[in-house]
Amino acid sequence: MTVGASTHRVDGIDKVTGAAKFTGDLAFADLLEARVLRSPLPHAKIISIDTSKAAALPGVIAVLTRDDLSDIDPYYGNCLRDRAVVATDKVRFVGEPVAVVAAESGLIAEQALALIDVEYQELPCVADIEAARAEGAPLLHESQAGAGEFHDVAGVGETFGGNICHRERFTKGEPDKAFADADDIIDETFTFPMIYQYAMEPHSAVARMTADGITLWSSSAHPFLVRAELAHMFGYPHAKVEVIVPYVGGAYGSKSYFKIEPLAVAMARKTGGRPVRIVQSVTESMLTTRRHSARLRIRTGVKHDGTLIAREAEVLMDTGAYADNGPRVAKRVISRMLGPYKLDHCKIDIVAFYTNTVPAGSMRSIGGPQSIWALESHMDSIASTLGIDPLEYRMRQLLKRGEVLKPGATAIDADLRQGTQAAVAPLNWRAAKRGNGVGVAVGVSDSEAMPVSVALIRLLADGSVILLAGTTEVGQGARTILSQIVAQELSIPMDRIAMRGTDTLTTPFDRSTGASRSTTVMGSAVKAAAEDLRKQLITAAAEAFNTSTNTITISKGEARCADKSLTYAQVVSKFFGMPGGELIGRGYMRPDGALGKTFPLFWETGMGGAEISLDRETGAIKLEKYITVADVGKAINPVQAEGQDEGATIQGLGNTLFESLEYDNGQPVNANLVDYRVPRFTDLPEQFESVLIENGDGPGPYGAKGMGESGIVSIAPAVGNALFNLTGVRVRDLPLTPERVWREMVRQKEKGKS
Amino acid sequence: MTVGASTHRVDGIDKVTGAAKFTGDLAFADLLEARVLRSPLPHAKIISIDTSKAAALPGVIAVLTRDDLSDIDPYYGNCLRDRAVVATDKVRFVGEPVAVVAAESGLIAEQALALIDVEYQELPCVADIEAARAEGAPLLHESQAGAGEFHDVAGVGETFGGNICHRERFTKGEPDKAFADADDIIDETFTFPMIYQYAMEPHSAVARMTADGITLWSSSAHPFLVRAELAHMFGYPHAKVEVIVPYVGGAYGSKSYFKIEPLAVAMARKTGGRPVRIVQSVTESMLTTRRHSARLRIRTGVKHDGTLIAREAEVLMDTGAYADNGPRVAKRVISRMLGPYKLDHCKIDIVAFYTNTVPAGSMRSIGGPQSIWALESHMDSIASTLGIDPLEYRMRQLLKRGEVLKPGATAIDADLRQGTQAAVAPLNWRAAKRGNGVGVAVGVSDSEAMPVSVALIRLLADGSVILLAGTTEVGQGARTILSQIVAQELSIPMDRIAMRGTDTLTTPFDRSTGASRSTTVMGSAVKAAAEDLRKQLITAAAEAFNTSTNTITISKGEARCADKSLTYAQVVSKFFGMPGGELIGRGYMRPDGALGKTFPLFWETGMGGAEISLDRETGAIKLEKYITVADVGKAINPVQAEGQDEGATIQGLGNTLFESLEYDNGQPVNANLVDYRVPRFTDLPEQFESVLIENGDGPGPYGAKGMGESGIVSIAPAVGNALFNLTGVRVRDLPLTPERVWREMVRQKEKGKS
Repeated sequence: MTVGASTHRVDGIDKVTGAAKFTGDLAFADLLEARVLRSPLPHAKIISIDTSKAAALPGVIAVLTRDDLSDIDPYYGNCLRDRAVVATDKVRFVGEPVAVVAAESGLIAEQALALIDVEYQELPCVADIEAARAEGAPLLHESQAGAGEFHDVAGVGETFGGNICHRERFTKGEPDKAFADADDIIDETFTFPMIYQYAMEPHSAVARMTADGITLWSSSAHPFLVRAELAHMFGYPHAKVEVIVPYVGGAYGSKSYFKIEPLAVAMARKTGGRPVRIVQSVTESMLTTRRHSARLRIRTGVKHDGTLIAREAEVLMDTGAYADNGPRVAKRVISRMLGPYKLDHCKIDIVAFYTNTVPAGSMRSIGGPQSIWALESHMDSIASTLGIDPLEYRMRQLLKRGEVLKPGATAIDADLRQGTQAAVAPLNWRAAKRGNGVGVAVGVSDSEAMPVSVALIRLLADGSVILLAGTTEVGQGARTILSQIVAQELSIPMDRIAMRGTDTLTTPFDRSTGASRSTTVMGSAVKAAAEDLRKQLITAAAEAFNTSTNTITISKGEARCADKSLTYAQVVSKFFGMPGGELIGRGYMRPDGALGKTFPLFWETGMGGAEISLDRETGAIKLEKYITVADVGKAINPVQAEGQDEGATIQGLGNTLFESLEYDNGQPVNANLVDYRVPRFTDLPEQFESVLIENGDGPGPYGAKGMGESGIVSIAPAVGNALFNLTGVRVRDLPLTPERVWREMVRQKEKGKS
Repeated sequence: MTVGASTHRVDGIDKVTGAAKFTGDLAFADLLEARVLRSPLPHAKIISIDTSKAAALPGVIAVLTRDDLSDIDPYYGNCLRDRAVVATDKVRFVGEPVAVVAAESGLIAEQALALIDVEYQELPCVADIEAARAEGAPLLHESQAGAGEFHDVAGVGETFGGNICHRERFTKGEPDKAFADADDIIDETFTFPMIYQYAMEPHSAVARMTADGITLWSSSAHPFLVRAELAHMFGYPHAKVEVIVPYVGGAYGSKSYFKIEPLAVAMARKTGGRPVRIVQSVTESMLTTRRHSARLRIRTGVKHDGTLIAREAEVLMDTGAYADNGPRVAKRVISRMLGPYKLDHCKIDIVAFYTNTVPAGSMRSIGGPQSIWALESHMDSIASTLGIDPLEYRMRQLLKRGEVLKPGATAIDADLRQGTQAAVAPLNWRAAKRGNGVGVAVGVSDSEAMPVSVALIRLLADGSVILLAGTTEVGQGARTILSQIVAQELSIPMDRIAMRGTDTLTTPFDRSTGASRSTTVMGSAVKAAAEDLRKQLITAAAEAFNTSTNTITISKGEARCADKSLTYAQVVSKFFGMPGGELIGRGYMRPDGALGKTFPLFWETGMGGAEISLDRETGAIKLEKYITVADVGKAINPVQAEGQDEGATIQGLGNTLFESLEYDNGQPVNANLVDYRVPRFTDLPEQFESVLIENGDGPGPYGAKGMGESGIVSIAPAVGNALFNLTGVRVRDLPLTPERVWREMVRQKEKGKS
């Protein structure tokens, strides 16, 4: 069995030897380097742009400004087309591209940026959610408020005037009435900071435009969506837009949909066919995308026995200057506000606001860490109010397999109690070490994995195999997983299989890499392609043996019939009558019910159990133990699955204890890796365990379901709950910095005194 | 109907604007330029090679010699693996690679070549066929004479000792006996010179070797065969050998099989992953491959009434220093010695000799011009001997459709009389203008087109189409023809279809581009893929309309059901539930009888009718009129078919009147475009007509058969026959230069006097 084995990563040697090429590593002749002039102001009208001095600088090939966009539709966006390639009328956040210079070298381009004169007329800054929703607030998108110039690309739902980018409202049962039956109402407000996704590789792209069409090398996680958007913007058929994605150095949502690609291609229109490269600095990428910050109020009515009667939740999210993926993020918060607990009456109102900050888009478990931080902290508060052990309370209230979390959605497809138990088993829950506190959290998310993937598998005349699948290898190990599926289905060793990066001219369509969909959806397409290929191989072998297909067995790279055997290479050669030819397997995945008749395809489920200690003089939390549980259905590659879940957990440790992208009235104050603190290996707990739950209950190949996001959602509430367990102090704002913890301890101590 | 229309070439704009990129145009960063040190001697032992001074030259990165081949199998060859990447023990022709230098620039590499000291021990030169077959002749391949170190790759048949590279013997009936019944025996010996294929683009390659395997950009016409050979030589699975072929500037057989590719890859092994480029000069390419020269003796016994009783033919061919495609060329001569005439008894002996000259390989109609020059001149001589008009004689003796030329082979699939009549119809055969002579020739060749091709067609979500087919666009118009087939089958306009060059990692297998097989074989694979795609499209449309497939019709880019219609883009989007996904059609061609149960798949048939005048003082022939006839079954694109046939005819005009690659005891004397005279446009006749015979009798799509080679075979005998018609002088050696014609006229005149 290749599937289920912790095989080596197929990209491992490339990566540890440095042979792996990322977009910025690719070598091009005639390459131009581009640099981007970015707005220094959060909100301003552009009065004029004078590029004459920059354009005259020797070595400058072209300068791109709003004046170059007149012959195309300059607006793009995956939910709303509300953003232009470069700022047109106004700038809306610090870092917004205003002009781009392409030059013979990066230094020349840099120098040229300083020669561009932009005259701005400053406008009042909409600094945050409060400012955005204030009466008479300045509008970021005037036209948005009006006739709706912006096209709702994704059909994600309501859009509104004012500074509201998107609103989602959801009601289940009759919450207003039901609250009357509650014995107690717990009402809390939580906040979650802006977080930068921090992929090691910043956004990178090389674009070229020739008679053949557009060619774009990009760090994009979504090459096929980029293709469609570029085709739309620049007026080409899809068949003439080639998007090539080599290795990608992490994405975590930061490379979803469209980031610098439209800009790169627009610049390439002006370079006379020469390729132009944009490789951002980390600071530039921190000013390109981030996770939504949020303010979440939850009111839950309960009975004395713990029964959840009704809930009302108001979630205000800061989407920044442009919609990016905000509407989808907002939509996904709903299920997390309902929570994986028995609850009949609920009312949820989610509003995403435009503010003069960097646009917020996707990040690992979109909307998840924000809402599960709030909900799972809140569940602890309820348990505490009721005087019930929070673990005990969860075990009582959790939904069972087959019960429905959200009407119309797929029923719960996991054993939540099993996972929760697994998260606390290695802890001494009832009697933690003196000075330590324990906490648990349960994360259940509806994956938005769309079931659309196509795969091809080519069996060549020497028996080696090329897998063509459009999943982007962003470090998650997708090429290994997909190769394992091929190896398993065709019964060949992994080293006979080659899979390279996507090239949309030759790699079949995949909707996207994200939403934990690759193993489940693309994996199913690959498995279907392998089955199709195997069928052809059997038919060809039967022809070669002059027998019927049911006498043929396939194993270890050979087709056998009784005591005779042929290698696959021999089967192919006999089929084509020469040492040549190839057999091609084809697999389609689409929403035809093959992966389930309802959505989500699967619930992405994970739990965390934390044990912490605290320096009461400084407020510094030390994570002593952490257990992360991921319900993966089936681990195709257990070591990779554990690695993914551990990675997600460590990333979540960032927003739990350290990370927050700070603004001062529209000016970013820590958009660099010195001031913005991400977790280090020394921050990891001494005991750090990953537990995989494998009940084979996923819709993917071999019972797999998506994973790799759940680890990020539970750690903040598990740690917060452990802090409460240890101190009785509930901190409702992240990150749990020493200062914040200390102040809250002092505040509650003084409140207790008064 | 797109098929049958003279649509614009899909590569036309690229080519006339200069946007089309050929291998030498491709831009690479870190590129190294390679230059090749070539043997100045025709036959010599290599005593020593000292590269130390060259390697020490600043800018030289690596030097390749025989010392670098110890860890690989350095021998390659498509028929016999008799040739090493660079010379090992001996050099066998002037121009043979001995060492290669890769340097930062071509100039440095050139300079370094001069610093390499090679000590040779000269060996006696085997200058030509006579020298090769002489008693006690020095051997070119000592081991060949012994245990047979060389592997007969293609299974082409007998190999022999001495300087014999290959021998083919064929007997039909009982010729020795039958000659006794002849009333007359006509015995003639003809010669055909060495000819250079002269593609405008010389051989070019860029090779790179990295952890991912081998990547080769090449002007090769046979990328999949190159892949297999490189995989074999350098020990990689096919899936790790990427051969990329952009536009190719003509091939005519000169780029068949393996030319500079093994050398380029061997060099790339030494450059630490940096790409290395070899772009040959025209002179270097003239010392890389050529057409076989030949000496052909034909004895035919006839009855007074013209009946052909028996024939004996001995064909001696000069294969040069290495086998290249010599054995296959020899094999193909058989059918042309039989000829497309009624003949029951025949004995043919064909021997290909090794000589110390540039290796002879494929050229347009391999073995065709040599043998048809002899046979069709000979047929005229027979007619003359019998006192029968040569046209009349042919019309009487030609095989009819369904009659068998060669036992076991496919029966004649064309109306040869119709074609012959068409070739002379525009001439005034019986009463040519005073001072003019007329001649006709019939060319019938067994195409060796192998029926192995695979094609994929991707219908993208916007309704645009990508065709993946491994036919190399060498200028013959293959991309246009294959795109027309897709357009026809899918009922879409040509500009919705994109087809690029081959990349073996993503383009499915095609046996080769050559032998006039692309329209017939790859065209059928493409048509099958389109049919497969159309079937899927109809099924998807039926699903979308919620009806059965038989109510769906496909036309003009839409699927219709009664009065409702959906564009293909809509069908794909509905199938996948989003504006994405794609449908992929797949087509296999293989020797399963789909293209016929016998070989050849088709007879490639063409005729030529010539009218000439002569300057009797100088012997200069002027071609006044020429009619070339090609029996194409069905012209997918008539203008392209005519262009191909005209091109072949003009190329044949070269060996008719001008071209001959001359050697002086192993030293080439005119391997350059100043001294080697190819036809100019001013050499074309005033009246130059191309006639296509379209009887729909080919096995290819829409009744097409292969074409593009026949034009080259008939012109020499048609002109030679016209000269005879005009002067009564038979010249049996090509080219028909003024001096040769004049001398022969003088000689025969004097012979007549004596």
